[in-house]
Parts: sequence; C-alpha cells; structure tokens
Amino acid sequence: MDLSTFLPVARGDEPADLALRNGRVINVFTGEIITTDVAIAKDTIIGVGPDYEAREVIDLDGRFVCPGLIDSHVHIESSMVTPPQFARAVVLRGTTTVITDPHEIANVAGADGVRYMLNASERLPLTVYVNLPSCVPATHMGTAGAELAARDLIALADHPRVIGLAEFMNVPGAVLGLPGALEKLNAFQGQVIDGHAPGVSGKWLQAYIGAGPGSDHESMAADEMLEKLRLGMYVFVRESTAAKNLRSLVPAITLENSRRCAFGTDDRHPADLLDEGHLDYLIRMAVNEGVDPIVAIQMASLNAAEWFRLHDRGAIAPGKRADMVVFSDLEDFQAEMVWVGGVLVAQDGAPVGDWPAVAVDDSHVRDTIHVDWERLSFSIPAVTDQIRVIGIVPDQVVTEHLIEAASVARGVAVATPERDLLKIAVIERHGRTGTVGLGFVRGLGLERGALAGSVGHDAHNLTVAGCDDVSMMTAARGVGNLGGGLVVAVGEEVLASVPLPIGGIMSDKSVETVRQQMDNLIQSARDLGSTLHDPFMALGFLALEVIPALKLTDQGLVDVEKFTLVPLWVE
Amino acid sequence: MDLSTFLPVARGDEPADLALRNGRVINVFTGEIITTDVAIAKDTIIGVGPDYEAREVIDLDGRFVCPGLIDSHVHIESSMVTPPQFARAVVLRGTTTVITDPHEIANVAGADGVRYMLNASERLPLTVYVNLPSCVPATHMGTAGAELAARDLIALADHPRVIGLAEFMNVPGAVLGLPGALEKLNAFQGQVIDGHAPGVSGKWLQAYIGAGPGSDHESMAADEMLEKLRLGMYVFVRESTAAKNLRSLVPAITLENSRRCAFGTDDRHPADLLDEGHLDYLIRMAVNEGVDPIVAIQMASLNAAEWFRLHDRGAIAPGKRADMVVFSDLEDFQAEMVWVGGVLVAQDGAPVGDWPAVAVDDSHVRDTIHVDWERLSFSIPAVTDQIRVIGIVPDQVVTEHLIEAASVARGVAVATPERDLLKIAVIERHGRTGTVGLGFVRGLGLERGALAGSVGHDAHNLTVAGCDDVSMMTAARGVGNLGGGLVVAVGEEVLASVPLPIGGIMSDKSVETVRQQMDNLIQSARDLGSTLHDPFMALGFLALEVIPALKLTDQGLVDVEKFTLVPLWVE
Repeated sequence: MDLSTFLPVARGDEPADLALRNGRVINVFTGEIITTDVAIAKDTIIGVGPDYEAREVIDLDGRFVCPGLIDSHVHIESSMVTPPQFARAVVLRGTTTVITDPHEIANVAGADGVRYMLNASERLPLTVYVNLPSCVPATHMGTAGAELAARDLIALADHPRVIGLAEFMNVPGAVLGLPGALEKLNAFQGQVIDGHAPGVSGKWLQAYIGAGPGSDHESMAADEMLEKLRLGMYVFVRESTAAKNLRSLVPAITLENSRRCAFGTDDRHPADLLDEGHLDYLIRMAVNEGVDPIVAIQMASLNAAEWFRLHDRGAIAPGKRADMVVFSDLEDFQAEMVWVGGVLVAQDGAPVGDWPAVAVDDSHVRDTIHVDWERLSFSIPAVTDQIRVIGIVPDQVVTEHLIEAASVARGVAVATPERDLLKIAVIERHGRTGTVGLGFVRGLGLERGALAGSVGHDAHNLTVAGCDDVSMMTAARGVGNLGGGLVVAVGEEVLASVPLPIGGIMSDKSVETVRQQMDNLIQSARDLGSTLHDPFMALGFLALEVIPALKLTDQGLVDVEKFTLVPLWVE
Repeated sequence: MDLSTFLPVARGDEPADLALRNGRVINVFTGEIITTDVAIAKDTIIGVGPDYEAREVIDLDGRFVCPGLIDSHVHIESSMVTPPQFARAVVLRGTTTVITDPHEIANVAGADGVRYMLNASERLPLTVYVNLPSCVPATHMGTAGAELAARDLIALADHPRVIGLAEFMNVPGAVLGLPGALEKLNAFQGQVIDGHAPGVSGKWLQAYIGAGPGSDHESMAADEMLEKLRLGMYVFVRESTAAKNLRSLVPAITLENSRRCAFGTDDRHPADLLDEGHLDYLIRMAVNEGVDPIVAIQMASLNAAEWFRLHDRGAIAPGKRADMVVFSDLEDFQAEMVWVGGVLVAQDGAPVGDWPAVAVDDSHVRDTIHVDWERLSFSIPAVTDQIRVIGIVPDQVVTEHLIEAASVARGVAVATPERDLLKIAVIERHGRTGTVGLGFVRGLGLERGALAGSVGHDAHNLTVAGCDDVSMMTAARGVGNLGGGLVVAVGEEVLASVPLPIGGIMSDKSVETVRQQMDNLIQSARDLGSTLHDPFMALGFLALEVIPALKLTDQGLVDVEKFTLVPLWVE
C-alpha cells in the first residue's frame, strides 16, 4: 500500500475503510489478548487502538480476532483440486496464506507444472507462495514425467511468489555432498530452504542443517522435534491425511521453545478438508492437547511468517496486510469471519461476495496419459515357485516385504483373491519409456475387479491392481479415457470413476464434488471386497520408492531398505 | 564456509579444528542450558553434541558458553576511538557483532565518512555492520559538514556490510509523509529500517511504524516499551553514557514478550566502556534487575540476529558462525574466553594473539577544522537588557530556556562567572558558511578560562564556552591546532587537551589512552571550577537542536519546542 494513501488514515486525518470495534485482539508479539479496535484501509491494517473513524464499522462484541492463518507446508495437489478450489475450501476456515510445494505436478509436468500452479493461484482470496520442488524425480528407480535440475529451479526462482526451496528429501545427497544435491543447495544458500529429515539425528542431522535446510515437518516423536529445535530448525507440526504427528509432538511445546514451531498440513484429502478442516483443525487439536491457544495461533501466523521472511503479515499490527480471522472460543477455534487483504471473503463457513475466477491456460498440464495400449500386457511368465509380495499396512505408507508361493496357471503367475494376492502393475504414463513394472500385493482385499489410478507418488505413473487381467485392463484404459483419474472396474465394465484431468492428479471440480465422487468410488471398491479405509490412498503410495519396505515402480520392484531394484521371482 | 569443507567434519569423517568439551551451552532457541560439546571447523560451528574428534580440545569443565553478543545500535564514534580500537575494547567483553550508525562522522564528512567507517572496520575481530544514517543533517537550523539525500544512501547500500537504514529520527517527516523523508523510506522499503521515536505514541506511532521503521531504542518507560512491542516493533533496551533506560524497562520484559527485545549501547564513552563494560554490563544489569539470564542472552544474540536478518549468527548451532563466549556465572556475566569466527581472540579480558592491523586511508576524514581565525570574534553588541540563557541540567541532554539580565561592559555583553553565566559560541567548522552562533550558558560552573571542542552533536561544529574572550579564543584555536579535539585553556595558555584528529570526533589512540587523556582534561576543567561529572559531554550536547528546550547552533539560538531560531536579546 502506498504510503501517501496509508499515512493520512493512520494519522487519523482521513477515515479508515473499516473499523472492527471491541475485538479481543490476539497479540502474537507479546502473547496478550487486548480488547481494542482494528482499523483497515484498502488491503492494510493501519492501526490497532481506539478512536479510528471508518466508513464501515463492525462491532465484534468481544469476539476474538487473530491474524490470518499460514500453512507452512502443503501440497495443494493432494487436495485433488486446483488452487482456486483449494483456496475456496481453506479460506472459509481461516487460512489466508499457504506455502505450497508443487512437487506432485512437477513430477508430471516439470517446470510447466510449477508455472501452472503459480498461474492458477493468481488473484485468489488466498496468498499462495511456492517453494520449489527440490527432488524431482525422487530417485533413479522410477520414471517421472520430468526432471528438475538446479538450473531449472534457478529459472523459476525469480517469480515474486517463489520463496525458496521445498522439502529437501535427498538427505544422503546433502550430507554426503553429492554433486546434484550440492548444486541445488548452493544455488539457494542464504534463502529459505525447507528440510525433510524423518528420523535423521546426531551428526547426520547437524551436517544436513549446516548444508542449508532450516526447517523440518517430518518429526514423529517429541524427542526428534526437540533435537531439531535445539539445533535451530523451525519445526512444522504436521497433521495430514496420511501422517498424523500432532498428538505426539505438541505436549513437548513450551513457551520457551515455541517461537520456531509452526504447522504444516502437507497432504489433506477432500474428505478431511471438509469434515475435519485445515489449520483450524490443527489449532483445535493442539489446544485440546494442552497447547496455549495463543501459542497455537503464533504457530499458525507469526512464527511461520518469520521463517519464510514474510514481513508483511503474520500479525495484527499497523502496516501488516489485513488478513484477519474472527472467532468466538479460544478452546474451539472456528473461523466466523475471514478478511483477506482487507476484503471480507468468508462468514460462518460460507463465501462472501464474488470470488474472482481467473482464466488459466492449463493446456500444458492436461492430456498427460500417454500409454501404448496395444502393447500393454499384464502377463507374468513363471520363473520359480516363490514371489515377492508387497504387504499393505493399513493406514500407513510403509509396506511389508513378503515372500509367498506363486499361483501359476498355464505358465503365468496369476492373482489369487482368495489368498488376498492381487496382481499390480505400474505403467509409465508420461510417454517417455513405456516401461511397465509388474508384481503382487496383499492387503487391498478385493474379491473381484480392479482399481486403477494416475495418482501414484511421486512419479504419478498409472497404477493398477486387480483380480484378473481383463478387469485391470478395463480399469487402466478407464483412467486413460478420463485423461487421468481413479477407476473401479469389473470385467469390461467401469463401475465408478473420479476424473482428474489436470496432470492426472487434480480435478477441475470443487472439493465438495470431488469428495462426493471419491465417496462413491471408495464405496464401489468396498462393494468389491476391499476393507481398507481408503484403498486408493493405499494404491497411490505403493509406487513411492523412498518409503520402506517393498515398492513397485514402472522399472520393477524396489527393496527400499537396500535402495535397489529386486526381481519378482525368488530363487 | 564451503560445504565441501564443512560436511566431512560435520558428518564426523574428518576431525574438527576445535572441540569445547563439557560446556553448559546456552540454547537460545529453546531456552535450555544443555551440558554438551561444541565442535568448530575454520570459522563455523559444525556440531553441538558429543563425540566430535578435534585437533584441539578445550575442557570447559561446566562453564557456560553462549553466542557472541550483538549490539543492535551503537555509534562507534561516541567511544571517541576508531573502529579497530573500539573493537579491541568491546571484543574482550564478549561483543562480536555490532550494528553501527555512523551518524556522527557522516555529519562531518558525509558519504566519505561512512566509507571510512566501513573501510576501517574490515577484517577486525568484530563484525561491524552499518545501518546508514537517515537524518544528516538533523535539521535545517544548523550547518553540518554534509547532507545525505536518498540517492546518497542508495549509493552506499550495496556494500555487503550495509544492512539498511539507521534510526529514522525525522518522525514528523515520516508521519506527515514529507517528500525528503518519504523518498528515503520508500528507497529502503522491505529492508531493515531502525526507528527513533522517543515518546511517540498512539496514532502517530502507528503511522510511523507503517511508514517503515520497525525498531526503536528510545523507550524511557515500560508503558512506552510495551506499546511499541505490541505494535510489532523490536525494542532495543538502551543503557548509554548519556541515556540510562535499562532499569526502567527490563521489569516489564517477560518470557511471552521478550522475543522482540534486544540491547543497544548507543553512545558509550571510554571511561564507561572500561569501568562498566559494553553488552556484558547491560546483561549483568538486566539479570540484576530480575531478567532471566537466558532471556538477557537471547536479547543480545538471537533476537538481534532475527531483526537484522543475520541468519548466520546469534546462536550456538551447526552452520552458524563460530562467535562464542565462555563465562562462569549466570548472575554475573564476565567474558572469560571469546571466539570470533572460530579464532580465540580474548581470554580473561586480554587480547589473544595478534589482531590484524589494517591500513586505512583516512585522508578524507582528517583535517576537518576549517575556520577563518582572523575573522573570528566573540563580541556581542548589547541590544536590550535581557538575554536568553541555556540552562544545563546535570546528567541530562535536555536544557532549560532561561531569561536573565545581561551583563554589559563597554557596549558588549560579557560573561559573568560569579553569576555562572558563561559566553558560548558555536563556530561552523566545516568550511561551508563560516557562521558563528553566540549566546550564554549557565551550569558549566567555570570560574575562569574556557572549554572548547569539535564534538558537538549532531553537526559537530566547534563549540566554545568560557569566562572571557581571550580564553575562548585560545581554546578554540587549540582545537584547530590539534586538527580537532577537546581543549581547556586559561588566558593564552592551553592547560589540557585530547586530540581527536579523525573527523574532529575520534582519536587515533587506544581507548585506554583516550580515557587517560579525558580524565586529565576533565580534572583540568574541574580545577577551573566546573562541578559537572563531565563538562565536555554537557558542552557537546548544547548544540543538539532537536533536544529541548534551548540550544545553540552556528546559526544562532534554537527554541526547540517552537522548532525555530530565536534572538539572544529579549525585547
């Protein structure tokens, strides 16, 4: 905001646009709650105190007002919707700024994917900052749609909403100083580099921190969090759909150590966004677990703003951006009014006014399923008697590495649903290698039919699991016909589907619509016998070759603990 | 430090250069004290924890180790010595980084003065950052040696040790949006801008903060400090030679509000540096007044580093610069060992090793006394019966605005020591206008002779006060003969002097030498009858036309409350 506009209002010589009277203002600087007024002109808070004249006055009547909430780490793609639809879902709940890592779309479409996320988040009622995906592809053992080298990241870094480098997952690369990793770290030295160091401790953690990453959102235990805080890291307490860490961590948060604690939602699926919430849910949980409500709000505002050097926000104070949330109960944070840049955008959980719809060229992130269907085959010629099987662990992304007797018919290995052994295929779908990895999985529980999806972390290849090759082919082709998505099929019939035409990982519909589609899809899978809470989430992580123990990429089975490809057949 | 050097040591594959064993490490991130080891390679802390091999090992045997101290606001010139000599004085006491505002030398020599301070602080065992003087000259009612416009400041801003803009004293300019002030503020928007807002409150304070300044070191009362903290300012608690605010402020500092509190020494004279100390003294005082010792250390390290965005220091943690202080008593902070960039530079209050002596071209800041001695006259023709008199208030920089009967002899006003009315002259000495302001002062207490000095805040003109014109001329010419300095004279004899050849405000000798010279000088003034603790400090502030009530510049008497020049003679 131009000072020549700001100053006359701040001095009191001209009226403000808006005054919130009698609010209990959460002061994140001093940890106090102070009953006073807040005055706003255009997009900026111009004063906190009494006696500001204003064109519009709202009496808060003792309700609380706090800074707009900041999500320190989120993959918007995991909401399965585009940035505008994601914004609609989270702004209603008080989130006004997110730092997103477009890691998923970058694995599909590279720099074009990152640019799409930046373009699709222009002029939203949510400020979307991007930290650049540091590890695309995740490893050399799977085929992603693109690679991002240091020079590609540098070329993206000039955008005004790009802050720095996102979760630096290549811990060995950083600690051992491997050339590709060092090149990226050196390119962003002195800027914000977010870390990703699950379970890393001791000297390796110190080397990793010294190499540049200054934050982490992977702590699973209080001791792990405290070690990271003591070494100067910012710790983002995470509560995502797949990884629930908040309850383990927050009991160790104190007044003394909280200044470098923040929140990250990482990956939250549509149902969780709608049923539980976003940062509001994390604040409620934290307070319920005993965290001081003001500390919880500091974690979701000032602390995050300080780490990301967002000096224009994170507090209710003169000169700060007028991102504000009104709520009534410190113990049960529910956003009742949300202002973004001085505009009231949500009230009582519903949007206010017309949110801008910005036309975005998404041609580079559509039509991303490139499979040679004629050559595709799921046939597995028998070699020995025993096979490796991926064992799903319910509600975890880790798997078991099982050895089972193979079921062989007419010289080929077949699925045996009665033993809960399904065939699984990961089909390179970016049109690069055409490779197909084949294997077996236990734990999906299907009695017939097949599941397929183009969401397959991190390379997002086409993943199919089923009881017979015909159903698998129907499901896989169904995904292809959608231009990306999730499908349940039996025989030659598609029973249910969720179209994800944006990169094969995001819908172009609202989060409510996707949630309904997902509910139908999961019910359809359950009807076929699956007992999992969300069999498609399990399917989507079976290809993630950086999480133990046994995974399948388009290149084949990966023994993650040995960090190497292994054969399906055991001698 | 290059990562290829750092990483092998951090991982433990190569030995460190130094390990401090069994230290009680002050963890400024978590507020804890943790007994462990600290490992250093070259200039960097590579690890905090056990089992680092090292070429040199020092057993701290339970002594405390904390980050090197950071002074958030200091005018090095006020120590009356050059940066290398200042460094010698403060590093022994644990200060390893200062943010200096070269406001004094800039008033003498403009941008050349700022560049001199930058050049003279290269490769010291102290990191000297510069915030650029924002208000040179202080007002249009005095003649400084130079002006610094926005374009001059921008031209200096590229230096790697220039952070931003220093104490923005022109509060009305900022709040009213006057062009010269706005130009400077806009040029540094988004960067660090330090404030200077004594007693400013309410809407004016909010407008001032919104205009850019984000810190303040002028709080005199706890309420004032709390208002500034609540509005998001960093507050530097100051304890200088002339302004002692610490005891009034620190009782209001809490765990909740301390994260934006820091320390500034502003102006500390040689005797105070040597007898009391530097930041170590402020820490001792704060702890003595009840501040938690860890909070006090945070104020002198992490908090300051965060405000000035010095991400490489302010904590004992991997990757941080190895600036460290060892001490034995939390309640009585005394630096026993000081490392700067991994080098042990001081032990038990004495320097260790050879400190580098860097040759600096100081030609632009020498020979700064330019007075036309032949034209100089202190004669004041009588006009009416009554005169305005500046009334000194002991140990304050404010003065009284007195009206007294004039003593007239042979048609001119004369000093009357028996009434404690001395004549005072402020002689423009930068060779620009040759103007001389004349007036009278009460409170110096001289019975005979005169005092003169080229230290005269902020324009640093030549200020002389005395009992007769001959002594005044001797004292003034004595300063000229020194090329700048402080002089006591009687009749035609110089009794004592302190040469200050650098800009007329700094010695080229050690702080110990200057202190001895100052003691002699003050004793000489006392012998002439002065009863003040330091009559030269009083003299030096009589020309500061921004401090109430009545001051004298080279342009004449200034009624500061009316912010206008006023005549000596009252009708």
